[in-house]
Amino acid sequence: MKLLIIGGVAAGTKAAARARREYPDATVTIVTQDDYVAYAGCGLPYFVGGEITEARELIVRTPDEFKHENRIDVLTRHQATVIDATAHTVTVRDLNNGTDIVFPYDKLIIATGALPLIPNIPGANLKRISTVRGLNDALKIRAMLDTGKIKNAVVVGGGFIGLEMAENLSRRGVQVAVIELKDAILPGFDPEIAALVAKQLREHNVAVYTGEALTEIIGNAASEATEAITTGRRLPADMVIFAAGIKPNTAVAIAAGIDADPRGMILVDEYLHTNLPDIFAVGDCASVRNRQTDADVFSPLGSTANKTGRLVVANLFEDTEKFSGVLGTTIVRLFDYHAGRTGLSTQEAKDAGYDVETVLVPTPDRAHYFPGNRMIITKLIADRATHKLLGAQVAGTGVVDKPIDTLSVGIAMGMTIEQLSGMDLAYTPPFASALNSSIVAANVMLNKLAGKVRGVSPFDLKLNDPTLQLLDVRTEPEFIISAIPGAINIPIEELHPRIGELDPTRPTVVVCKVGRRAYAGALELSRAGFTDVAILDGGMTAWPYETE
Amino acid sequence: MKLLIIGGVAAGTKAAARARREYPDATVTIVTQDDYVAYAGCGLPYFVGGEITEARELIVRTPDEFKHENRIDVLTRHQATVIDATAHTVTVRDLNNGTDIVFPYDKLIIATGALPLIPNIPGANLKRISTVRGLNDALKIRAMLDTGKIKNAVVVGGGFIGLEMAENLSRRGVQVAVIELKDAILPGFDPEIAALVAKQLREHNVAVYTGEALTEIIGNAASEATEAITTGRRLPADMVIFAAGIKPNTAVAIAAGIDADPRGMILVDEYLHTNLPDIFAVGDCASVRNRQTDADVFSPLGSTANKTGRLVVANLFEDTEKFSGVLGTTIVRLFDYHAGRTGLSTQEAKDAGYDVETVLVPTPDRAHYFPGNRMIITKLIADRATHKLLGAQVAGTGVVDKPIDTLSVGIAMGMTIEQLSGMDLAYTPPFASALNSSIVAANVMLNKLAGKVRGVSPFDLKLNDPTLQLLDVRTEPEFIISAIPGAINIPIEELHPRIGELDPTRPTVVVCKVGRRAYAGALELSRAGFTDVAILDGGMTAWPYETE
Repeated sequence: MKLLIIGGVAAGTKAAARARREYPDATVTIVTQDDYVAYAGCGLPYFVGGEITEARELIVRTPDEFKHENRIDVLTRHQATVIDATAHTVTVRDLNNGTDIVFPYDKLIIATGALPLIPNIPGANLKRISTVRGLNDALKIRAMLDTGKIKNAVVVGGGFIGLEMAENLSRRGVQVAVIELKDAILPGFDPEIAALVAKQLREHNVAVYTGEALTEIIGNAASEATEAITTGRRLPADMVIFAAGIKPNTAVAIAAGIDADPRGMILVDEYLHTNLPDIFAVGDCASVRNRQTDADVFSPLGSTANKTGRLVVANLFEDTEKFSGVLGTTIVRLFDYHAGRTGLSTQEAKDAGYDVETVLVPTPDRAHYFPGNRMIITKLIADRATHKLLGAQVAGTGVVDKPIDTLSVGIAMGMTIEQLSGMDLAYTPPFASALNSSIVAANVMLNKLAGKVRGVSPFDLKLNDPTLQLLDVRTEPEFIISAIPGAINIPIEELHPRIGELDPTRPTVVVCKVGRRAYAGALELSRAGFTDVAILDGGMTAWPYETE
Repeated sequence: MKLLIIGGVAAGTKAAARARREYPDATVTIVTQDDYVAYAGCGLPYFVGGEITEARELIVRTPDEFKHENRIDVLTRHQATVIDATAHTVTVRDLNNGTDIVFPYDKLIIATGALPLIPNIPGANLKRISTVRGLNDALKIRAMLDTGKIKNAVVVGGGFIGLEMAENLSRRGVQVAVIELKDAILPGFDPEIAALVAKQLREHNVAVYTGEALTEIIGNAASEATEAITTGRRLPADMVIFAAGIKPNTAVAIAAGIDADPRGMILVDEYLHTNLPDIFAVGDCASVRNRQTDADVFSPLGSTANKTGRLVVANLFEDTEKFSGVLGTTIVRLFDYHAGRTGLSTQEAKDAGYDVETVLVPTPDRAHYFPGNRMIITKLIADRATHKLLGAQVAGTGVVDKPIDTLSVGIAMGMTIEQLSGMDLAYTPPFASALNSSIVAANVMLNKLAGKVRGVSPFDLKLNDPTLQLLDVRTEPEFIISAIPGAINIPIEELHPRIGELDPTRPTVVVCKVGRRAYAGALELSRAGFTDVAILDGGMTAWPYETE
């Protein structure tokens, strides 16, 4: 068998390595237009920031090692230009000398990844502007930083890569501003979780401007970027990082008659076949199925690339291993703050037609009395009809990857909130509370599903509603330090005698630190005849907006 | 409603607190013979070691707080002596003055916990001997350590509490030896995982003697322990800690006609009813159902106690919430080493009639290029017939609680190895590899289930079989540093030309560092006509026994 693979980062090299193991007699060739293969793309921001010190640490395997240890031919700086599916050949241009080579194949795997989107604005072609896609980009950015001339940087795009770059530029002493076109950073996260992350970034001296578009980059006489102009402001910018999205790198595949969606994503079935015989597509250039919505989605992640790259090899001759799809699981570390998500967001769940209930529950990430415990905030999204867990988001300075993985398996397996509440999770004080954070959140959800309490999320709290009565039942010292604008303070112990100070006919939302006292207060108000009572989900701990 | 609760640690106080919320008008009373209530029993070893500095940090809530904040009456030093199920009363002795009080109840919750087993040996009643069950024990042990006279200690029992005490005594500068009656420490873990933990303890200067029984404790003129004698040795022992198991504290319940098993464990149904009306049992004194075997098991853990204590309140008047049972999930931190388990062990799975396959897979706990990554070893236990995951054990200096929780949900939900391989787990280099450790282990398992490779676990490797040919395919420098006694070294690159040095008719086991080169070597030998070839699961990284 002659196996040809176009693309040599995660999916392509994973496929090549497994093909070598499974087919000892096959010819395995990788062609890539890149200078490097088998590098850890997700590690690039940390190389820029210096946490990873050497570029070679990011390179899993060199072309030379592929050749001598795996008998895999790797041709870098070789760009596939024409796929002839009928003749079973690929024409490849050697970028070193411009000559064309025609490679015959028995099986072809397309793993061409994605390309960064470059905003079409004045100044986009100045110097000291970069995307963050390949190792070359990271080397270039690090070299710019090493000149010592970069004092201010603007990052365009508030997704993972943009925010990770913001963190790492900041670690290098650069003053960073992030520009995000949408109303919130971190697309796919619920707005209050994204707002918690934005708050943390600002506390780490990274400016975050949402709902703004970059319109122009101004340069100096040496054509170096010096200033970025957005729809809202002018920002000093010795460097501009474009991290405003990527698109599948599939022009050659589409020209060959391979089916793609309007975004350019190659459409594959669950065995990773394209519509053309003997041609497969894996990694960022190919569609994946969302397990919950059954939609073909764009999920350009290293985890998906590694999985599909490995899996496709089982299906070269017959359909053997199905790819089960994704849940949109993602996670980010920004300074000492962590945020992860899995499954549907609240909006995605509503869009999919579910009658949604949510909770927002702050807990410590291990026993509250154990040194080193940190707060995490767990948001669960459930279906009121079936009580199934639809989605989860967790954020905080504590451990977030553990609950996200745990809950992602639950979602994949169709777990109900009742089942989550009964899970037998690992407990020892250094690692967990006796009632695990996810179980506590499930128990709060069960109270809500049973109608024992009504909650309102920070995002849904209507502070500008003049009829709103916002009751803060914390102690006076707690209230004085920080409170939501407009809140009335009656400590829970004084609520009974002072209940007459409140209007029982107005919609009333009760808030405390995490929700426990608010729950007691809400019960007290309901017993006293208040008709419209809710608690603020997550209390002050999860409140991501302004306080006074 | 008059609710009476006997026992005031985890389950009892959890039940009381929820009952107060759900039944605002009920009378809620806790009686306990202990001096303290609502303390974190699992935190006791860390208080002894000093990681938790103050005893009050372990106390979640005092009787005074229960009284004034929750309107719950807590009577400490009050021992329930007679339960009259017909009259619906409990007679309670006030241990302060010896008087009896009769409490009527509408609903009775028994949460009397468990009592430590004291070995019936000469010297067991000397001074400087303690169990580790209540806060009093921990205070006593800490006071003994504070005298500065404890240089050597013997811990009897190699379960969690014993080992956590060994760690914490060692942190206090005490020379510790652990005596375990069985052949391995950590009952419920597979022998090679337990052996890895024992190896780590020894490297931290804690002696571990398995297969030995304590026979006598010798004291000095002041009746203080000075020496412990086992079936194998004499050990200096200024202090002896009994952590050799616990038994349900249920004599009063059994005398009242409440059904218990031969071990004394109160038998409850899934709604936590005993056989007598209006009497429930929760926490360590009650049975729980194992989710996989459906057996009534003794699972004295804080996590179970908290869950059942909370849940029982929903079932006081009608059966509302079922307890779903346990998977035997446990975890321990010992110095910088962690070990966890969930589901069935290999032996338990065999005993339950499964045709078992296992893997033992070392991986880093996050991206291999990310600073701070640490090794973990994942053992998966699967059913060959259905490919269902039956159990998992993870050990190492890396993060262990995350995979254990993730896999425990999978086991609870009936996940197959194929499903595990396709899980969408959270990936970012600081927290995980692109192919998560559990997914890598699943992929190795799939290779085994497909018959591509045969493995032998460290425990099953028959080093004293004279026909065994143990082939180490690592480099010579790796081999020289540490190798299994009797291994032959032929580096993988030289295997082809030197294959004639091996006997193709002998059973051959191939070993390398983690398994990758061994796999290649095994394939090479099979192609060369070797008939009985296997790889050593987990390679040298997971080898817990002697090397040379």
